[in-house]
Amino acid sequence: MTEQKFVDRNSAGRRRNDKSHKAILQAALDLLEQDGYRALTIEAIAAQAGVGKQTIYRWWPSKAAVVLEAFTANAATQIPQPDTGSLRQDLQEFFAATLHAGGERTALVLRSLMAEALLDPEFAEQFLHIFIYARRNALGELLTRGVQRGQLAADVDINFLLDLVYGAIWYRVLVQHAALDEVLMEQLVDMLRRYNPA
Amino acid sequence: MTEQKFVDRNSAGRRRNDKSHKAILQAALDLLEQDGYRALTIEAIAAQAGVGKQTIYRWWPSKAAVVLEAFTANAATQIPQPDTGSLRQDLQEFFAATLHAGGERTALVLRSLMAEALLDPEFAEQFLHIFIYARRNALGELLTRGVQRGQLAADVDINFLLDLVYGAIWYRVLVQHAALDEVLMEQLVDMLRRYNPA
Repeated sequence: MTEQKFVDRNSAGRRRNDKSHKAILQAALDLLEQDGYRALTIEAIAAQAGVGKQTIYRWWPSKAAVVLEAFTANAATQIPQPDTGSLRQDLQEFFAATLHAGGERTALVLRSLMAEALLDPEFAEQFLHIFIYARRNALGELLTRGVQRGQLAADVDINFLLDLVYGAIWYRVLVQHAALDEVLMEQLVDMLRRYNPA
Repeated sequence: MTEQKFVDRNSAGRRRNDKSHKAILQAALDLLEQDGYRALTIEAIAAQAGVGKQTIYRWWPSKAAVVLEAFTANAATQIPQPDTGSLRQDLQEFFAATLHAGGERTALVLRSLMAEALLDPEFAEQFLHIFIYARRNALGELLTRGVQRGQLAADVDINFLLDLVYGAIWYRVLVQHAALDEVLMEQLVDMLRRYNPA
């Protein structure tokens, strides 16, 4: 599995030189914010982090891989797993955290990573396993608890509901025709509640 | 408006030399299928169409613009506007046509155009106006007729419903974790029918 290889590679990197590893990830985030994804280069990341280019290439195959790890390791983008007993409450907390993590800087990174995934099948595989599936699993567990508590119909197709939620969010991030805002999050909660038991 | 400029440019091109114009669009589609988007070049399109590179650049600013026009001009990707009096029937016909137009060749073109839009803000504007909004308007009119006939709640937010539908479709096209199939289309019709008047 590409995912496993990728993770092992980084764990090894971390063990070998935790300080350089962190400096590289921080440099990638800083340069991304400053110059944007397209202008970002491995050379610039290396210079900013005070390491050699080969140090970066030893741990990551491409700038997209560095950015993906920097992004997913960033505490600000972590989403909690609420379990309050109420589906509505769980969803509201989950979506509030999603929105909080989803500012313009995050949207910029997501658009860049998706563009890269669309042009590079190997990176697409990493992006799918490290980011897309992780988010689907988190919300999927929350919805499964809703089914178990009888707050969602027992025969609901959770994978389809995940496509509706993440589809709408990604569509707004990518197409940029409308804001990713609280109104959207409330509308998504309302939509999911229409799948309650008849 | 970028869209207007783009359209004028092509109309002028069509008037000047309709045969070359068509040959270029057909060459773009043929080469796209044969070699994929990334390998596609203006040089190759010109050679295949039997025209000079400058003829293409006179009418289109980039290969993405050629592909966008070739794609939207292709009859196979046209979606009808059913108006049967039944929201369910209209939706089923609309989604059947969407699915029919959405084979693997179409998905490949859509992924390429989205990647280009994510990397090129000027092309993103054209893509938004020539493709994204055209599809939203078509389904939006269908849903508006559903509201007028009392088959959808009067206070429904049609723009949100369009985000749910096109979000789920685009998410499957881009992420490729699951098929764009009849099951998804039936689930989308069922989802929209949950917004019927209380």
